[in-house]
Amino acid sequence: MGIVIRDALAAVPGPDGIEISRHTIYVAGDLIAGIDEMPAGFSGDEVVEGRNRLVIPGLINAHTHTYMSMMRNSADDLPFMEWLFERVSPIEDQLTGEDAYWASLLSQIEMIRSGTTTFNDMQMHIHQTTKAVRESGMRAVICRGLVGDAYDREDTRLREALEEMEDGKDCSRLTFLLGPHAPYTCGPDYLRMVADTAKTMGIGIHIHLSESVTEIENMRKEHDCTPIEYAARAGVFEVPTIAAHCVQLEGEDISILARHHVSVVTNPASNMKLGNGFAPVQELLDAGVNVCLGTDGAASNNAQNMFREMSHLALIHKGWHRTPQCISAPQVFEAATSAGAKALRLNTGSIEVGKKADLAILRLDTASMMPNNNLLAALCYSADGSETDTVIIDGKIVMQNRELKTIDEEKVYAQIRRMCERLGL
Amino acid sequence: MGIVIRDALAAVPGPDGIEISRHTIYVAGDLIAGIDEMPAGFSGDEVVEGRNRLVIPGLINAHTHTYMSMMRNSADDLPFMEWLFERVSPIEDQLTGEDAYWASLLSQIEMIRSGTTTFNDMQMHIHQTTKAVRESGMRAVICRGLVGDAYDREDTRLREALEEMEDGKDCSRLTFLLGPHAPYTCGPDYLRMVADTAKTMGIGIHIHLSESVTEIENMRKEHDCTPIEYAARAGVFEVPTIAAHCVQLEGEDISILARHHVSVVTNPASNMKLGNGFAPVQELLDAGVNVCLGTDGAASNNAQNMFREMSHLALIHKGWHRTPQCISAPQVFEAATSAGAKALRLNTGSIEVGKKADLAILRLDTASMMPNNNLLAALCYSADGSETDTVIIDGKIVMQNRELKTIDEEKVYAQIRRMCERLGL
Repeated sequence: MGIVIRDALAAVPGPDGIEISRHTIYVAGDLIAGIDEMPAGFSGDEVVEGRNRLVIPGLINAHTHTYMSMMRNSADDLPFMEWLFERVSPIEDQLTGEDAYWASLLSQIEMIRSGTTTFNDMQMHIHQTTKAVRESGMRAVICRGLVGDAYDREDTRLREALEEMEDGKDCSRLTFLLGPHAPYTCGPDYLRMVADTAKTMGIGIHIHLSESVTEIENMRKEHDCTPIEYAARAGVFEVPTIAAHCVQLEGEDISILARHHVSVVTNPASNMKLGNGFAPVQELLDAGVNVCLGTDGAASNNAQNMFREMSHLALIHKGWHRTPQCISAPQVFEAATSAGAKALRLNTGSIEVGKKADLAILRLDTASMMPNNNLLAALCYSADGSETDTVIIDGKIVMQNRELKTIDEEKVYAQIRRMCERLGL
Repeated sequence: MGIVIRDALAAVPGPDGIEISRHTIYVAGDLIAGIDEMPAGFSGDEVVEGRNRLVIPGLINAHTHTYMSMMRNSADDLPFMEWLFERVSPIEDQLTGEDAYWASLLSQIEMIRSGTTTFNDMQMHIHQTTKAVRESGMRAVICRGLVGDAYDREDTRLREALEEMEDGKDCSRLTFLLGPHAPYTCGPDYLRMVADTAKTMGIGIHIHLSESVTEIENMRKEHDCTPIEYAARAGVFEVPTIAAHCVQLEGEDISILARHHVSVVTNPASNMKLGNGFAPVQELLDAGVNVCLGTDGAASNNAQNMFREMSHLALIHKGWHRTPQCISAPQVFEAATSAGAKALRLNTGSIEVGKKADLAILRLDTASMMPNNNLLAALCYSADGSETDTVIIDGKIVMQNRELKTIDEEKVYAQIRRMCERLGL
């Protein structure tokens, strides 16, 4: 099966970064097989007309917890530790695996509808996000959240993580990381054990680092170092690491991250909503750190819409540093696309021949995108995500003219309503 | 003609602020004629079913320049004065009155589609926004931007403003203010003249105040005071004033604003985008100032979507002050509805019998709004505006099931494309 996107504006890599130019794109199998040149033996069953359309690489939500959509708007306006331990955890404790499956589908509906094709998920209930991903057609990087104290290779959560990896081998849209939750929930020996395991297995690590002021204060008190130093000492950064948040960075933190090629996921809405502040994104970029973008879970955002996140990233640092010349639209777009692909080591995130065919096709004949005169800026400053018309993931159309092809939305919403009643949400 | 919105969740004033509860709302003529009780003699031609719907007061965009949608994404990432005088003004100089009419329609499409029913507009070309408003069905408060030096009651721009007011008397959806642009474009005598004229006429003033650091520095150098003090001395605050921005407040500024019952419009996206920073909204609210919310023009936002603006207002102050307990969802909702109505002295902004029937009806069966468990928070933290399904303004349906009833969108977009070509945008 092949798809032709005919004569559309597209955001493609050019000599000076991403440029918007008109192209015909050929999708064959799971790949972008040709741009303007039809590949040999191509047969296109499906034609998408490009008039008034903009094709972008599908957005990459580089840090979220899809099962947390059940907690959307049920734990607002609380300090971080109270939010986590007094509100979120008690609801989490009641969630069944099946709840997590439906809640993950809910997040995935929201993501597909707003142009996201890949997400990086830290979760609790193995086999549930993967089950939802198999159905939705999304691309996902999965880790089971790990917490513990001892150097114990037989740790239950680690065993679950490994079991899930084994099970997911047959789905090419699924890849896995190890997910030690955070320095404040993983003792130094446990963290060392997870890092050693990742090193042995040749896979990467996904971790929360330096999110709240309380985390920094406690780490100083208990270990006389920053969470970044703590993770470095435990050997975490000896494997490819994607670190969420990195809001409270001090001293040598940025240079440690840069030296170890740690990718940082910034989550502006979540960091603001929980009162954690603004991450030093400009400083991280200046130090050469690969900065990608994520929504975090819906309990602290409270959306899974990467366009909203792009607008936050494009604006808040200009406000904070009081200069309009800070975090440009091209930098925001890179954070939401190719930087995420690099961090997650996926062959996606840009429109190039040979890359996975993960594409979002947006309408340009909408008020928010008119006039169509600087579309890279429009994506970051004007679009709200509802411009997303058609989404292709791994060469398959998962949404066409805003109609989802893979998920029965009504069924998901009905199930979510039943779960809310049961959980008292 | 009457409209019944049957058995819908609605955001209505309760004893402890806005509450979400289930109601049937009767619209007769231009008013909300009954809530749960059918008014005598009511005949409902139109029934809107409330299942999976949330009715909110139409949002009030308390500061914008609708003609500026032509400059959307054509002057990004520039310092304020360069943005204004080197990029925006040269384009403005080329705009004809007819251009301003089409551009205002473009902004109005975006506003209606995202649930805004009223806007407060400062403009250059008289009769153009009003012409667009007569067609779109929106409610608008209009002022012609005034700039000058001398105390001259025969000033051309002022004469234009008065002529437009006279012309607009026949449309009940139009009201007017006087619009001295800003302290840095209005000399003290001119400002005094405008204030005196407003006082004589019994109308209010709409002005930009304390937006950029440069404005403050120049004001200190030239007049040894803050822009707030400058406006106060000129007598501006002796008439009801709605002041946009108020980002750079110092010394006695907040108490001057509070003492004179000046309404402040905060424009978070614009203030961030131009590098002006964050307005002290929490401090203004603590001082009892009526704070409302606006998008500003699309040249500095770059959207006219009040839901996006609500999310910025709800989040950035939590980030800036590093506390999640700052600017709550109810405060954000008030800023986007009833506070705007108060500032603009309009009988709208809340769902109560006797108020103008300006209503936005949102879908609750969308991923962003599920689970439906704290809808006031969902409006501020989760909604992107595209949930808006049906919009009623002044008792008339202007959008139904996302189809605009009053504006031919395709015609507007075609015209905007032609204007872009002519203007080289």
